[in-house]
Amino acid sequence: MDLQLPKGTRDFSPEEKILRDKIVGALKEVFELYGFAPLETPLIEKFEILASKYAGGAEILKETFRLKDQGDRELGLRYDLTVPLARYIGMNPNTKMPFKRYQIGEVFRDGPVASSRYRQFTQCDVDVIGSSSMAADAEIISLIYTAFSKLDLEIAVKVNNRKLLNDALNYCGIEKSRQESVIISIDKLEKFGINVVKNELKQQKLDDKKINTILGILNIQGNNQQKISQLKKILKNSEGLVEIEQLLECLKIINLEADFDVSLARGLAYYTGTVIEAFLKSSSVKSAVCAGGRYDGMLGAFLGKGSYPAVGISFGVDRVYDAIFEKQKTAQKTNTQIYIIPIKTLNESLKIAQQLRNAGINTDIDLLDKSPSRNLEYANSFAIPYVAFIGKKELEENKVKLRDMKSGKEEMIDLQTLLKKLKS
Amino acid sequence: MDLQLPKGTRDFSPEEKILRDKIVGALKEVFELYGFAPLETPLIEKFEILASKYAGGAEILKETFRLKDQGDRELGLRYDLTVPLARYIGMNPNTKMPFKRYQIGEVFRDGPVASSRYRQFTQCDVDVIGSSSMAADAEIISLIYTAFSKLDLEIAVKVNNRKLLNDALNYCGIEKSRQESVIISIDKLEKFGINVVKNELKQQKLDDKKINTILGILNIQGNNQQKISQLKKILKNSEGLVEIEQLLECLKIINLEADFDVSLARGLAYYTGTVIEAFLKSSSVKSAVCAGGRYDGMLGAFLGKGSYPAVGISFGVDRVYDAIFEKQKTAQKTNTQIYIIPIKTLNESLKIAQQLRNAGINTDIDLLDKSPSRNLEYANSFAIPYVAFIGKKELEENKVKLRDMKSGKEEMIDLQTLLKKLKS
Repeated sequence: MDLQLPKGTRDFSPEEKILRDKIVGALKEVFELYGFAPLETPLIEKFEILASKYAGGAEILKETFRLKDQGDRELGLRYDLTVPLARYIGMNPNTKMPFKRYQIGEVFRDGPVASSRYRQFTQCDVDVIGSSSMAADAEIISLIYTAFSKLDLEIAVKVNNRKLLNDALNYCGIEKSRQESVIISIDKLEKFGINVVKNELKQQKLDDKKINTILGILNIQGNNQQKISQLKKILKNSEGLVEIEQLLECLKIINLEADFDVSLARGLAYYTGTVIEAFLKSSSVKSAVCAGGRYDGMLGAFLGKGSYPAVGISFGVDRVYDAIFEKQKTAQKTNTQIYIIPIKTLNESLKIAQQLRNAGINTDIDLLDKSPSRNLEYANSFAIPYVAFIGKKELEENKVKLRDMKSGKEEMIDLQTLLKKLKS
Repeated sequence: MDLQLPKGTRDFSPEEKILRDKIVGALKEVFELYGFAPLETPLIEKFEILASKYAGGAEILKETFRLKDQGDRELGLRYDLTVPLARYIGMNPNTKMPFKRYQIGEVFRDGPVASSRYRQFTQCDVDVIGSSSMAADAEIISLIYTAFSKLDLEIAVKVNNRKLLNDALNYCGIEKSRQESVIISIDKLEKFGINVVKNELKQQKLDDKKINTILGILNIQGNNQQKISQLKKILKNSEGLVEIEQLLECLKIINLEADFDVSLARGLAYYTGTVIEAFLKSSSVKSAVCAGGRYDGMLGAFLGKGSYPAVGISFGVDRVYDAIFEKQKTAQKTNTQIYIIPIKTLNESLKIAQQLRNAGINTDIDLLDKSPSRNLEYANSFAIPYVAFIGKKELEENKVKLRDMKSGKEEMIDLQTLLKKLKS
C-alpha cells in the first residue's frame, strides 16, 4: 500500500496539535468575551448554495470540491464559513437580531494541480449580522487586537472601504460593470507590485489616463487624517469615506488605531463596505493572519431581501500556527503531568493511577513492563514533568519515589503530598 | 434559491452548540486525565487508503463519499478515525510506542438514498497502539466510566472477545472463511432478535444443528463467573476466554465491572480480540454510546508487519448529545455574562464594555440603539444573567444600573464592585 496524504493536506502530530488547540482555545475565549455565540454547520453543503451568485464567485467555485451522495444529489465541501452562515440565517428567519456568532471549522479549496497550497485549512470566523453601525466594525477590530494580544503576537490592522473604492473608480470614469474585476486587480498591489497591476488593468482595456488616475488615488500618502482630507477634496461626498471616518473615530474612543490604506481591496466579490486585514509585525508570515469586512449584499440574497447588514472576519489558524511555531523555542510536547513506572506492582500501580486521575491529575502509566531506564527515556522524550516509581518497597511505606524530570531530583513522597504538589 | 441542508446533515444552533462543546470538552479532559495525546488528520484521505482490505470492509466502503481533486486524484471523506490513525502510524514508523492518542472529528457515511441516518457525525476516539496487555483494555473501560460519570450519565458496559467467538464457531464446525459473515449476523441479535438472526444464518446455508449449537452458546446464562465456567467446559482452551478472564480481573482491581456478553459481536471486520460497548441505563437512546475493541490486524497491515497490538474506542457525540438534551430541563443558552444597554451613551459604554472584557467578563452590548424594553426582551431571550443600563446619570455617578435578570432586582453599582460580583 502506498501511504500518502492527499495533496495539500497535512497531519498534526500530538506536539503540533497541542499548540493548535491552544490557539483555537484562546480565540474561542476571546470570541465569547465579546459576546459571540458558537454555531456549527455541516462540512458538506448543497452545491447550488455554494454556487449562488451572491456567494464567493467564480474564482472560488473553480476550487470547490464537488461530490454526490448515493441519491445523486449534487454536493460540495464548504470553501468558507460565511456562505453556510448566510444559508443558516436564510433557513432560520426568526433568528434574534443582531446575531453575533462565531464558528471554528475546516474549509476546503482545491488548488491548481501542481500547487502546494493547503487544500484543507481551519477558519475561525466571527460575524455580526443585523447591525449597520460602524461601532460593530470597531468592536470587531477591537476583538482582533485582544485576540492577538492573547496569542502574544504583535499586529498591524489595515482598513479601507469598498464604497470608497467604487467612488474612486466612478471618479476615474470606470463603468460599474467593470469595477469588480478592477478591484480584484487592485487587490494584487501589495503582493505583486505596481507593474503587475498596471499590466492587468491594461489587459482590461483601461486607457493610460484612467490607470494613472486610479493608481494616483491608491498611492495617496500621509497619516489617516491627511489621506481623508485629500480624498475629500477629490471625491467630495463619498459615503465610504464617511464610514471610514466614523470607524476610526469609534476606534479612538476605545484607544485603538488602524491604518487607513486606500489600496486595500480584498479579493472576494461579496464585500460592500469596510474591509479589514491584520498582519503580523515581525514574522516570515507575510500574508494577512485575519481578514474580512462588510458584506451587506449576501445575506439579503439568502433572506430574499434587498440588502441586510453583516460584518465579519476570519482568523487563519494555519498561518497563526506557523507564526507561533516559528517564534517559540520549545514546544509543549504533552499535557500529561505524571508517568507511573510500576516495578512488578502493576495492579497496585493501576489503583494509584486511578486515584491521581480522580483528583484531576493527567496521569499515564507503563503497561508494557519496560525497564526503568527505557521508561525514563520514554517519559523524557515527551518532557513529562514527573515520574513516579512504584516498587514493593514504596508500597510497603505507602509512598512513591517521585523523580522531578527537569532537576533529576528524587524523593519518597506519600500520595496526599504528591497530590498537593501536582495540583499546585 | 432553495435553502436546504444536504440530506443526513444538521446545523447546531448556538444553544445546541454550547451543549455539544461541553460534551466534547468533558471528553477531551478525561482523555488527557488518562494520558492520551491529541492528533489531527485531514478529513479527506486518498481513496485507496480507505479502501484497503484491512480497513472498514465492503459494507462501509459502499457508504464512503468519493471525490476527485483538480488533478483527478481519487479521494474519499473519512468514514472513521481509525483508518487515518493506521495510515498515520504507517507514515510515521518512528512514533514512540505505546502511542496513546485521542482524536475528535467529523466522519461521513453516505447512507442509502431514502435513509434518514446522519451522513456526517462527530467521533471522539481513544486508542492505545503498541500494548497487548489486557491492562490497556481495562484502562480504556475505566476511561469510559470516568467520561460518562463526568457527563452525569449512568451506563452499563458490555464486553466480549472475538477470538472467543471464533473458537465458538470452530466448535460448531463453521469454516474459518464463513465466520466473518456469521459474526456480522450475530451482531444483529440484540437489535433485531433471534428470528432475524436465525433466518440470516439459514440463508448462509448453515444447517439447523449448527445454528442451534451456536445460538445455544450465545444464550448461556448466569453471572460473569458462571458464564466463564460453562464456556470453559465447552471450549476447553480458548485464548479469548483467558483474555476475558484477565480483563475482568484487571477491572476488579480498580473496582470496576463489565457484563460479559457472549453474543456481543460488533459489526466491523477488523476486530481481533476484546470488543466493548457502553449503553445508557435510562434513556430513549438504545444504541451504544461508546464502542470499540482490539484490532491487532489493521495496524500490522499498514506497518507492513504481520500483526501489531491496538485497542481503542469511539464515543458517539451525537447520541450522547441526544441523551443529555432529552434529560436536561433547561438548556444553557449563552456564555455571555452581562449585556450593556447604552442610553445615548454609546461611546462611554463601549469603553466600559472594553474594561469588563479586559477583566475576563463575557460582555455583549447593544449596537442598534434599541429601546430599553426591546433590549431587555433580547437579553431575556438568551437568558443572559445580568443587564447594565448606562445613561447620563449613571456616567455622572461613575456607576451602572445593574439588573439581575432572574430576580428582576436593580441596583446602582460602581465598576469595581461589578467586576468583583461577576468574577465570583
